[in-house]
Amino acid sequence: MAVTVNNLSSTREKLMRAKEASAQVGQLSTEQKNSILRAMAEAIEREAARILKANAVDLETSRLAGPMRDRLLLTAERIQGMAQGVRDVAKLADPVRECIAEWRRPNGLLIRKVRVPLGVVGIIYESRPNVTVDTVALALKTGNVLVLRGGKESAHSNQQLVEILSAVPGVPEGAIELLDSSTRDSVEDLIKARGLVDVIIPRGGAELISFVVENSSVPVIETGAGNCHIYIDTSADLDMADPIVINAKTQRPSVCNAAEKLLVHRDIAAEYIPRIVKKLEDAGVEVRGDQETCGLVSSVKPAVPQDWGEEYMRLCMAIRVVGDVGDAIAHINRHSTNHSDAILTRDEVNARRFLNEVDSAAVYWNASTRFTDGGEFGFGAEMGVSTQKLHCRGPFALTELTSTKYEVIGSGQVRA
Amino acid sequence: MAVTVNNLSSTREKLMRAKEASAQVGQLSTEQKNSILRAMAEAIEREAARILKANAVDLETSRLAGPMRDRLLLTAERIQGMAQGVRDVAKLADPVRECIAEWRRPNGLLIRKVRVPLGVVGIIYESRPNVTVDTVALALKTGNVLVLRGGKESAHSNQQLVEILSAVPGVPEGAIELLDSSTRDSVEDLIKARGLVDVIIPRGGAELISFVVENSSVPVIETGAGNCHIYIDTSADLDMADPIVINAKTQRPSVCNAAEKLLVHRDIAAEYIPRIVKKLEDAGVEVRGDQETCGLVSSVKPAVPQDWGEEYMRLCMAIRVVGDVGDAIAHINRHSTNHSDAILTRDEVNARRFLNEVDSAAVYWNASTRFTDGGEFGFGAEMGVSTQKLHCRGPFALTELTSTKYEVIGSGQVRA
Repeated sequence: MAVTVNNLSSTREKLMRAKEASAQVGQLSTEQKNSILRAMAEAIEREAARILKANAVDLETSRLAGPMRDRLLLTAERIQGMAQGVRDVAKLADPVRECIAEWRRPNGLLIRKVRVPLGVVGIIYESRPNVTVDTVALALKTGNVLVLRGGKESAHSNQQLVEILSAVPGVPEGAIELLDSSTRDSVEDLIKARGLVDVIIPRGGAELISFVVENSSVPVIETGAGNCHIYIDTSADLDMADPIVINAKTQRPSVCNAAEKLLVHRDIAAEYIPRIVKKLEDAGVEVRGDQETCGLVSSVKPAVPQDWGEEYMRLCMAIRVVGDVGDAIAHINRHSTNHSDAILTRDEVNARRFLNEVDSAAVYWNASTRFTDGGEFGFGAEMGVSTQKLHCRGPFALTELTSTKYEVIGSGQVRA
Repeated sequence: MAVTVNNLSSTREKLMRAKEASAQVGQLSTEQKNSILRAMAEAIEREAARILKANAVDLETSRLAGPMRDRLLLTAERIQGMAQGVRDVAKLADPVRECIAEWRRPNGLLIRKVRVPLGVVGIIYESRPNVTVDTVALALKTGNVLVLRGGKESAHSNQQLVEILSAVPGVPEGAIELLDSSTRDSVEDLIKARGLVDVIIPRGGAELISFVVENSSVPVIETGAGNCHIYIDTSADLDMADPIVINAKTQRPSVCNAAEKLLVHRDIAAEYIPRIVKKLEDAGVEVRGDQETCGLVSSVKPAVPQDWGEEYMRLCMAIRVVGDVGDAIAHINRHSTNHSDAILTRDEVNARRFLNEVDSAAVYWNASTRFTDGGEFGFGAEMGVSTQKLHCRGPFALTELTSTKYEVIGSGQVRA
């Protein structure tokens, strides 16, 4: 790959071009944006061979293995899927210019609260070329300029994808900017570009997200880590509990909404823990537990204190016995990453208390935590899952990529 | 004032107590909160003499002068006003636990989006004891714990106010924490307390706000500076324009929604500029201008480039001649702080274009910029005016002191 001579100033130049483009991108009409999106989908399909070739170069030089390598890999079918995803975004409702409130003041002023694009959105992500295409579509649909800083292992794929998408007629110059992924300097320049960039969305490992949150002077939407819990209450339907626990733990263990911890009410521990440990172990899960759990099943390894806060992201689960729903809530609020936590119970009072008091983005009653997802929630897309409380919380997509402004219409009013 | 021996750990201890209290404060019912607020108002009135005595100590040792000293000053009437403000907040609607959306998915899952408290809110502000009381009322009403870091000149007043408010029956321990104002260490500890504090709201000078935004690892709502513009279009009703310009500039020049810049369409410059300069000067305003403006009125001093970006906050205004509404929009988007900007015109096309393309929190058509205020917007209160795009933009009050959570209610659903 060609080395950029002056990368630092180059990032700055790209960000200034992005800022410059944001007025034009924000003024595109819904029909203009949808037409560009459909043309982007066609371009992706037309240029499939070129994309696959670049992806082959990435794969050849990549040191990634396992699921990370799989996420980097593109196939004809996956390219088709990316194009379809862009067409799906074209069909979603456009939130921009929507008037979400309107009222008249006693002095006659008409006040309207209207959705507007955020402006320039920066995204920092791993070596997943499909994210490049998904986020370009979501940003364009919401009238935002997108600055991409992808993982270095996907540099060639991203370069080709951004060239193809930027070349689509109607895309303003500067609407999609790809930063150099060969150095961390571009990340540092991006997160310090207050005044040029309106929001940074880090998607990736806990270390990257922490670095961005700790160091950014641009507002951040923290996405994130999920140390998700399932609490089995004394009145739970245990035949319902089994498939929920197995689904939440094993259906896709590497994602943030997979369950990592199981809390079991003491009154049913002797009955339920041996039974669920057997099913988990049969599904290939390594089970750890507190002293009581270990006393019930000999194959369970003792959990150490750091287990309770850890996001395993693999086939591992820790079990703890708790005294009641209050203990479960206290444990979760102490150790959870405030992502997704579930109670399984027939008792509505306990369920309501859990939903109310567990301080997480998504709280479940009698369902798997795996539903915390923009698609599963019915948003038609997903930009990420926010684990912070500011701006948006939980899965977010188009609406959350907008801000608002107040239009105030008068007839000469002055303040007394 | 007594020196705190170990201030660093003391701030940390206070923040941990705040975090600990947040679950309890968040679970207070609307009636409990309103009853506490009414008791707080009574306590303020009952303890007026004690508050005035502490305020006298602050005033005696203060080096503040002019409007800053006036903001520090409490009187019997002002204390009465603070108490009334708390009673007014008790009467406002409680946004907490409001369900703002509810839908059922094809798989039967019921999803509810519910407002919840932010948790722990930190506020950093100047030596204005009334802000202490206002923000305690807004935070309590929204189920939030409040951490206050006020200006050091108001330390005694704040200490007494926080003691009085915290002693009201029903206020959970830790619900109101006052940080040491004698050192900047408490600011630094507060803005680095990610995990303990959910949001920081800096209210004060541009330098303080910049410091917080640049250095905080806790999410920030930036409030702010207002370099506000009025653009007089060629078709403006000039008899309407005069009182609007004078009101926006002179009614309260030290506040963020006061106008600082006047842009005038070239076709009416020769007619309007001499006329408005005369009125501004009669009102005691120092007028600066670009070359064309200076050519029209000899008393106008030439503006230097930094004038266009400056928030004067005093009786000073700079005037510039522009070619058309597009030039006005471009000038504003380059120099504005994105707070409040107005167009005065009879031309609806130009007005709509201005409202649409000026990228500010509040955009006005034929009204004074001075209305950008929670009270004037009808919110019944105000926590600040956000000039960022994330979370909220423009004047904000109770609703914006909440986040949301998703409650997902199922009957055994697992993800396929």
